[in-house]
Amino acid sequence: MTTPDQVLDHLSRTTEQILGRDDLRERLASGTPLRIKFGVDCTAPDLHLGHAVNLWMMRCLQDLGHVIVFLLGDTTTRVGDPTGRTSTRPVLTTDQIERNAQAFLDQVSLVLRKDREVLEIRRNSEWYASMPITDVISELSLVTHSQLMARDMFQKRVEEGREIAMHELIYPVLQGFDSVALHSDLTIVGSDQLFNESMGRELQAKHSQRPQTVITSTITPGLDGGPKQSKSLGNYVGLAQTAEDKFGRLMTLNDDLVGVWARAYTELPPVDVDDLGRRAALGGVDARNAKLDLAEAIVARHHGASEAGHTRRGFLEVFSERGLPARMPHVDVPRQATVLQLVNAARPELTRSAARRLIAEGGVRINGVKRLDSEEPVSIGAQDVLQAGRRQWFMLAVHDS
Amino acid sequence: MTTPDQVLDHLSRTTEQILGRDDLRERLASGTPLRIKFGVDCTAPDLHLGHAVNLWMMRCLQDLGHVIVFLLGDTTTRVGDPTGRTSTRPVLTTDQIERNAQAFLDQVSLVLRKDREVLEIRRNSEWYASMPITDVISELSLVTHSQLMARDMFQKRVEEGREIAMHELIYPVLQGFDSVALHSDLTIVGSDQLFNESMGRELQAKHSQRPQTVITSTITPGLDGGPKQSKSLGNYVGLAQTAEDKFGRLMTLNDDLVGVWARAYTELPPVDVDDLGRRAALGGVDARNAKLDLAEAIVARHHGASEAGHTRRGFLEVFSERGLPARMPHVDVPRQATVLQLVNAARPELTRSAARRLIAEGGVRINGVKRLDSEEPVSIGAQDVLQAGRRQWFMLAVHDS
Repeated sequence: MTTPDQVLDHLSRTTEQILGRDDLRERLASGTPLRIKFGVDCTAPDLHLGHAVNLWMMRCLQDLGHVIVFLLGDTTTRVGDPTGRTSTRPVLTTDQIERNAQAFLDQVSLVLRKDREVLEIRRNSEWYASMPITDVISELSLVTHSQLMARDMFQKRVEEGREIAMHELIYPVLQGFDSVALHSDLTIVGSDQLFNESMGRELQAKHSQRPQTVITSTITPGLDGGPKQSKSLGNYVGLAQTAEDKFGRLMTLNDDLVGVWARAYTELPPVDVDDLGRRAALGGVDARNAKLDLAEAIVARHHGASEAGHTRRGFLEVFSERGLPARMPHVDVPRQATVLQLVNAARPELTRSAARRLIAEGGVRINGVKRLDSEEPVSIGAQDVLQAGRRQWFMLAVHDS
Repeated sequence: MTTPDQVLDHLSRTTEQILGRDDLRERLASGTPLRIKFGVDCTAPDLHLGHAVNLWMMRCLQDLGHVIVFLLGDTTTRVGDPTGRTSTRPVLTTDQIERNAQAFLDQVSLVLRKDREVLEIRRNSEWYASMPITDVISELSLVTHSQLMARDMFQKRVEEGREIAMHELIYPVLQGFDSVALHSDLTIVGSDQLFNESMGRELQAKHSQRPQTVITSTITPGLDGGPKQSKSLGNYVGLAQTAEDKFGRLMTLNDDLVGVWARAYTELPPVDVDDLGRRAALGGVDARNAKLDLAEAIVARHHGASEAGHTRRGFLEVFSERGLPARMPHVDVPRQATVLQLVNAARPELTRSAARRLIAEGGVRINGVKRLDSEEPVSIGAQDVLQAGRRQWFMLAVHDS
């Protein structure tokens, strides 16, 4: 049997902060399955490895018999969480929300167990759709203006003279009430959700519930060393990507992040994590091999060891002496470029429209991963290989400018 | 036919401020009956002459064919309007609200016409009871935090380090939306409601409605010269009081307020108002006679000329040489006292419980008005007469201490 301290220890690998640690220990010791709120706002359905950190922590708890309450915030999504937004954002339509919700569930299922015993799917419209305004008001009466304005994000807006719309100000109360409605015992979130989930603790206490424990997870830099993975920066590994695509993208990781990624995104023991970091620091072939090991470990976690091994071999076939020409032309490129810019740089003889056509028809790969979107941003790492046309390979060399 | 400018001129007698004067003039000129929102919050059912100022302005508009939409804020009352409160106030129960609502309607009907053509009775639960939270949120999204915090009352609370509960902060939005729901053309309110009703104008504009005109009415000091009439200070004339009680209380008015009260609470022409003020300034019998005329005019407005004349004669019978002893003992009393304190001062030989019994049994009158509540506060004016027992009269003399 796993002890509460063993569980906490396991979670600590990717934990930044815990509010209510003792509560969590006691709850784990009680033998009653925990209800773990996993609220999503249905607006960002493209999950990447960064999001998966929380999912894997939850998966670990599922494996111990605890219940993930996957909460689609179909009502609160209409409000628009102001988190991370410096300006007011538009409200989504019902159709958009439904599409996003399904996409979210599909992606979440790539990590979480779907057995009904450990995955409960809920929507906050269950309580919000029929909630009389007097009840809404009653919840609002439990919270003060200064409590909400204490949030750093709101303070920042005020300092910058930017407006806070009133629906944004009350958002944390609505999200907090979800924890009351679900009797949440625990929630695992990004640190930017700490305020909203603390509000959940407040409201639970006002409703005579034991407040949920809040775990915030560590944030790991993106492939290129940017503050975090982001689709718009192209420095991410998508959760829904194929094993081959994941592997290819992982091979573009900055050498100095290999150790950090190994710790955040694999379950390798600390000694192996340290070893990967050490080898990556050596650069050259050592770094490349460390990255191959890391990519295989991450892909194995998501797709199984067998497929990971197969993917590694496939990758090496293309990039080994067998698959690639002995000597490739080097092309100077900036660290950040779109797929089209890379093709233009490598094959200046093509017109822009010919280059676009080549991309759209699947003739362009980066590290063996097909790229179909001319405008997709790519962050270039060491030894990245561009294939632009049937037998034309180029070694990309980053020039800092 | 009455021209718009004649109407505006008439209303100006008790108008402090108008937002949207030109709109009102155009609406009056259009020939379409105006919809005049009269929102009440069901918490203060004891109306006095101060409240009646707005009612008489509305009555004037009813007489011209415009419609008063009497809005019982049965939902917003549960929220609790923070206006005039420096601390958060408790939320009322449904029963209390219903009782207060009926009492309000009864009292309002003492001034307003009740014909269905010119009095529409509505409750804001009509739109709020079934309003989905997403609509509430949508209204909130139309308003910013800084707009609401601009309210002086909220600023004051912040300065004093007092909390603002969130349901209080959003109150103006809820009250404002009432104007949208009712398609209000005009509302006549106390100046403390200016902010809330301006929010109504904002929301109407966002909903593509022509914003309502907001008239704030003048505030007139209480009988004793306090800032305004107030039940808890005992310096008021109640709307639901009998003609006799009104008359008696009016006779306690400070001499220097006779002109001001004549302007606010009667329809006497300016020349007569000035004359009353001039006579009151002379003091003595002149002041007393001026006050008799004022009391008769006010009672006439509420109960008709015939009853007012009858009441005046009744009052004089008690207080004339015929009804009262030629010489009465003087009793020194403070300007503010409870009924019990007055009786104790006049008849020190009675025990407190005997005095209470005397009051409860109807043996105590002030200026001929029976006082049944020992703890009722009384503000003493010049020449007030206390009857404490069957044939025992006392002339009250205020000592300032």
